[in-house]
Amino acid sequence: MSAPGLPADHPLADGRTAAAPLIRAYRGDRPEHLPVRLPVRLTMREGTEPLEAALTPALAAELTLEPVRRHGVDAAIAFTHGLVPVKLSGLDLRIVPDRGPVLESPVRSASDVLRLRPLDPAALAPVVEAVGLAVAELGSTPLIGSAGAPFTLASFLVEGGPSRDHLRARAMMYADPHAWAALLNWCADVSGAFLRAQVLAGASAVQLVDPAIGALSRRDFQRRVAPHTQRAYAGLRGLDVPRAHVGAGSGDVLDLLPGIGAQVIGVDWRTPLDQADERLGGRVPVQGNLDPALLGAPWPTLAAHVADVLERGRAAPAHVLDVGHEVPADTDPGVLTRIVELAHGG
Amino acid sequence: MSAPGLPADHPLADGRTAAAPLIRAYRGDRPEHLPVRLPVRLTMREGTEPLEAALTPALAAELTLEPVRRHGVDAAIAFTHGLVPVKLSGLDLRIVPDRGPVLESPVRSASDVLRLRPLDPAALAPVVEAVGLAVAELGSTPLIGSAGAPFTLASFLVEGGPSRDHLRARAMMYADPHAWAALLNWCADVSGAFLRAQVLAGASAVQLVDPAIGALSRRDFQRRVAPHTQRAYAGLRGLDVPRAHVGAGSGDVLDLLPGIGAQVIGVDWRTPLDQADERLGGRVPVQGNLDPALLGAPWPTLAAHVADVLERGRAAPAHVLDVGHEVPADTDPGVLTRIVELAHGG
Repeated sequence: MSAPGLPADHPLADGRTAAAPLIRAYRGDRPEHLPVRLPVRLTMREGTEPLEAALTPALAAELTLEPVRRHGVDAAIAFTHGLVPVKLSGLDLRIVPDRGPVLESPVRSASDVLRLRPLDPAALAPVVEAVGLAVAELGSTPLIGSAGAPFTLASFLVEGGPSRDHLRARAMMYADPHAWAALLNWCADVSGAFLRAQVLAGASAVQLVDPAIGALSRRDFQRRVAPHTQRAYAGLRGLDVPRAHVGAGSGDVLDLLPGIGAQVIGVDWRTPLDQADERLGGRVPVQGNLDPALLGAPWPTLAAHVADVLERGRAAPAHVLDVGHEVPADTDPGVLTRIVELAHGG
Repeated sequence: MSAPGLPADHPLADGRTAAAPLIRAYRGDRPEHLPVRLPVRLTMREGTEPLEAALTPALAAELTLEPVRRHGVDAAIAFTHGLVPVKLSGLDLRIVPDRGPVLESPVRSASDVLRLRPLDPAALAPVVEAVGLAVAELGSTPLIGSAGAPFTLASFLVEGGPSRDHLRARAMMYADPHAWAALLNWCADVSGAFLRAQVLAGASAVQLVDPAIGALSRRDFQRRVAPHTQRAYAGLRGLDVPRAHVGAGSGDVLDLLPGIGAQVIGVDWRTPLDQADERLGGRVPVQGNLDPALLGAPWPTLAAHVADVLERGRAAPAHVLDVGHEVPADTDPGVLTRIVELAHGG
């Protein structure tokens, strides 16, 4: 087993996960059964706050393991939160009920950007511990480390909370390109370090989660964001693990992602997988693209949708079935298990 | 002057607006100067609630006129709100501070849909009055009537408030296609009646506003939404006024819109106008697509953006310059005037 850069007892290095279906698919292969992953936010208990849960190692590890135990999926996704490195770097995040984390003092100016401090890797100890606890239980099932992509993270920092069109963030991008570049670099560096820590703790693959990317024109993504996304992946330099990108509304820029370090391209329900494969030149593993809105549909409707996704996914060199990064809170867990069984050929 | 179906004293029928640059561009022509329109939400005073303002005729008329008076744009857009016909049909909308209107009892089931009552056209009296007041002041400047497109309206009714991915609405689309079709028809009929009332009161053109459309795959739009959007436009049957569609994230479905009744296609910042024109086969007037995020940029940056939009717009048979349906609240009004002057060749 050779796994450049990874510790000898890493699951990819010691052989535990190297032949796992998800890892084989992430490397461009077609394993014996189609690997399935499910979003990590499935298992939240009522009243649990995701960012706090992500920083509580035993709880985060449990939440990471639950989809594997319950639904038999082919990978665990680290139960974490894109804002973990933001919080650990000392910014004053506050949790607002029904809204989630907000930033007391959003980043709006060049001097705000200058005040951002680099992330002390030692601060990531709770994340390292959570990943270690989960990996120790997972055996041959790989764990996917996860971080927010730089644009998604930067948008949060500038807006100070969730946003639809990311107007303030994009305004800074145009009005102050230098501050923007510095901010995106900071985000790339904290997300890169965050991924790196998860890999060294035992993650066999990683993903950058990028729900905001769909707000960008192709040109703006290419010129003002992509170099920083590349820099985030470069935080893994020397560590040979597959790298996925999980976007939303990213149909127009799919083909730009492999060139900046993404090796597996997540596709949301808006773009059929055969079209996505065409845009990717038929050369890149795809991940997706069950429509979360269908999870509550009658089973025959949902099963037909799964079959359609599987059929279109055959166009690509490799395919991992996925539901995107969130599912409706009222989803029947039994339905998820049935989807996994169906995809596994059951 | 011939204007089928319109009252003899309608501005298009009596000749006031028939040769206005915006109307000529909406009909596919290149008038002497490039027409500009600006979003209608520019002029809200602090503390004014848009839905209430829309139902207060004198205030709505003032707000409708202000962009014309202040910035010299080529059209007034009726100051109204997509939810006006929802409220006037008797649904229990409540205004929540910092969030806007929410629906106490969202529409979630077939029986909820059955309980929806048709809109009594007489209830639209405040809207008719507001449009009449504004048109009386506008002279040769056309007024554009406005309504929510069926999917955007239906999403609000199902979600009960604003939403990003419109999961619940799309879930109903799959889980109960008959209830969905009935709901979309209801939305199409109230929006169609709403547009019709505005035209009969003096609007020289109309738009369906469809910010939610970007959440749909092309196939779902085509199969489960487009027929209803067509039905909304059909509410204008017999009235010869130009019909625009103003979407967001609608790049993937632009070419489907002319076939269902849209004669002018709004394009947001995500899709360059020359590309949009290509997707439209070079045959359809386009509207757009200043990026609202650039309104706060230094003037040289913004002016270069305006010039780029104008240049790309030359690819289309006709072009109306627009900023989409909302601008940031902190936009400097002077900047908007400068944009209008620049587009007018000043």
